[in-house]
Amino acid sequence: MSKLALFGGPKAIGDGQQLKSSWNQKSMEEGLCEYTGAKYAKCVSSGTAALASGLFAAGVGPGDEVLTVAYTWVATSGAILRNNAVPIFADIDPQTFTMDVEDARRKITPQTKAILPVDFYGHPAPIPELMALAEEHGIVVIEDACQAATAEINGVKLGSIAHLTAFSWSGKPIYAPEGGGAYLTNDRELFERGLLAGQHPTVIQGLATDPEVVKHASMGGTGDRMSPVGATAAIQQLLDADARTNARIRNCEYLTEKLADIPGITPPYVRSGYKHAYHYYTCLWAPDEYGVSRDRFCQALNAEGVYAIAYVMDANYRFAPESEPIQAGGPLHLRTMFQERNLYGKGCPFLCPHVKNPPVYREGDLPVSEEMARREFCLSQPDLSPPCDENDMQLVVDAIAKIIDNIDELKE
Amino acid sequence: MSKLALFGGPKAIGDGQQLKSSWNQKSMEEGLCEYTGAKYAKCVSSGTAALASGLFAAGVGPGDEVLTVAYTWVATSGAILRNNAVPIFADIDPQTFTMDVEDARRKITPQTKAILPVDFYGHPAPIPELMALAEEHGIVVIEDACQAATAEINGVKLGSIAHLTAFSWSGKPIYAPEGGGAYLTNDRELFERGLLAGQHPTVIQGLATDPEVVKHASMGGTGDRMSPVGATAAIQQLLDADARTNARIRNCEYLTEKLADIPGITPPYVRSGYKHAYHYYTCLWAPDEYGVSRDRFCQALNAEGVYAIAYVMDANYRFAPESEPIQAGGPLHLRTMFQERNLYGKGCPFLCPHVKNPPVYREGDLPVSEEMARREFCLSQPDLSPPCDENDMQLVVDAIAKIIDNIDELKE
Repeated sequence: MSKLALFGGPKAIGDGQQLKSSWNQKSMEEGLCEYTGAKYAKCVSSGTAALASGLFAAGVGPGDEVLTVAYTWVATSGAILRNNAVPIFADIDPQTFTMDVEDARRKITPQTKAILPVDFYGHPAPIPELMALAEEHGIVVIEDACQAATAEINGVKLGSIAHLTAFSWSGKPIYAPEGGGAYLTNDRELFERGLLAGQHPTVIQGLATDPEVVKHASMGGTGDRMSPVGATAAIQQLLDADARTNARIRNCEYLTEKLADIPGITPPYVRSGYKHAYHYYTCLWAPDEYGVSRDRFCQALNAEGVYAIAYVMDANYRFAPESEPIQAGGPLHLRTMFQERNLYGKGCPFLCPHVKNPPVYREGDLPVSEEMARREFCLSQPDLSPPCDENDMQLVVDAIAKIIDNIDELKE
Repeated sequence: MSKLALFGGPKAIGDGQQLKSSWNQKSMEEGLCEYTGAKYAKCVSSGTAALASGLFAAGVGPGDEVLTVAYTWVATSGAILRNNAVPIFADIDPQTFTMDVEDARRKITPQTKAILPVDFYGHPAPIPELMALAEEHGIVVIEDACQAATAEINGVKLGSIAHLTAFSWSGKPIYAPEGGGAYLTNDRELFERGLLAGQHPTVIQGLATDPEVVKHASMGGTGDRMSPVGATAAIQQLLDADARTNARIRNCEYLTEKLADIPGITPPYVRSGYKHAYHYYTCLWAPDEYGVSRDRFCQALNAEGVYAIAYVMDANYRFAPESEPIQAGGPLHLRTMFQERNLYGKGCPFLCPHVKNPPVYREGDLPVSEEMARREFCLSQPDLSPPCDENDMQLVVDAIAKIIDNIDELKE
């Protein structure tokens, strides 16, 4: 229509427009802002560091309660404890494995300083509802999106929906072989204060504008820097993130279609308007259907060559060459740390004098979490992602069908 | 003498012997053990994480005092604060810039849980004397050797002299472009408990043998993993570490020889039996000699093309692309953190009810540290290391001589 740019006309791709391939020319932090739409992003050394930085930014400290879930990886509570605050656990919704908003509402107290929902297995927590709840109480939502960096809610990427969002790159939907993570936010104050939790004083000096932050630049230097080579590798992953996630979603939808009619197996649910990143593909097993326990069924699956785990009860995967499977121990409230309530030998932070109502963590407190932990089984992201395709998924379906056909042999 | 190995005789290089080049075939942790002679080494995400892991291993927590120095980089105290303990500062010896043993002795209290000396600028602290002092009081020495990984005391490499030793790879004598660090110890209990501070539960499960440690494996997962690519790069640095350090020592000795007779400049001192890693080459300036301040002299040096900094007062170097010079603010006790005594908004950990005698940090408390901070100037490791040689050092000497020849022009 208009004059060719070659001859002085307006550029077809102009006025701030550019192809997304330009991310390749930017820092991981700039690329993340473009990918998610968040205003600010800071790469850090791990997803845990991202969460801990976010909580620090929100002023979370001794005596504060942080409302979170026990149905998660241990790093969620690790970040809370690193800030010497007390995790208070809400139960989960049995369909999405994420925070139950009504239970969260019941557990908010005047001591609650932040809500820390987890986008567990890649399905976003109900962030809009939790943001509304937080607003009622004048507190912040720090979203643990470590397993869900490519997920969306109502067409919006995670990263700017909660007050602050934490990502991880360790084997996650955006994967960097060097690990690391990032926190993202639209709030300049949270962005700047988060730097104080673990960034190098000279980096804080280079990024912060708030005199109060600058004044404290030389405060900790706890070394939460993301590896520069890792950041370079992560940009390449960012370029492929949606293509890879979308291919995984197609694989998972294929599985769901084929598994839907098998009695005793409930494939994952996806809430309307939510994009599931499928870090894990998590089904529920009904032990009563065949009189066969979930663990026995998983053993049979593993024997057939399908890597299936009961993540919350028994995270038996390998993380590093020296790592060994662990018996994770179920939802966090049942694990040693919370039963003993003694991180540093003096009952801290649980029994700190600043804590108004020292929490007690009991079996039975979180009935849905406890039941799901007994019933879930998970297929993991590498087996669901490219180059795996329908043929690979059919192999998984065939293996499950073979077990169901021979289920009587598994009765104990 | 004996039969050739080729014909079935004993191997010339046998019985556990091997050339050091074999480190190249090992993990960074195995290489470190061979290099230092320490029994156990764990790579972590930073020197700060190494120190924090060591303090956690020693059971340091709220209410505990850790005796350290204020004449150091902020990460030293950052690691103490991360464990919610209180730093108590001893003064330094004015010749080596390391902990003054007699002042340390005076400041030990029943609350002192550990001594954390710093091998500042690459010169080892008086570890043997501090080990004797620690033994008298039944406490441990956690050595901050972040600037001194290639240094030695009486022919013994650092790493197994203190109870636990922390290294860093960020621009340090053993350099890895990805950063990271390690803690080393001969004490199996410290090695295993240190894992709990920040290693992945499956890694703890793979390395720990103590049932108490294994039981707590799923406790924090704070993400202090060293980058795997960084570890690979670090091994290459380990192979060259001594050659590079020895070449730097020759350069520094050349400087010392040439600068020794210039009035007003005191070159670095090296204690007998100590090997100085020269992470910095730190001289003292005598402002009264010419009526010219240290800062004015440094400005003149920088203008001549010699990068000289007043590290403790004004660490004006660049750490990452986004970093900016900072006014560090002098010895730690004078910085905002210690003047405000308020890490989390409630006076923690300084005013914690577990703290028996809340510390007060005042100007004048550490007269030697305060004076040295006003007088020191430092040349930094890259300018002292290969490929720099005598010709480069002579350029530095000439620049200093030029300034001294024209010193009257600098009077203010």
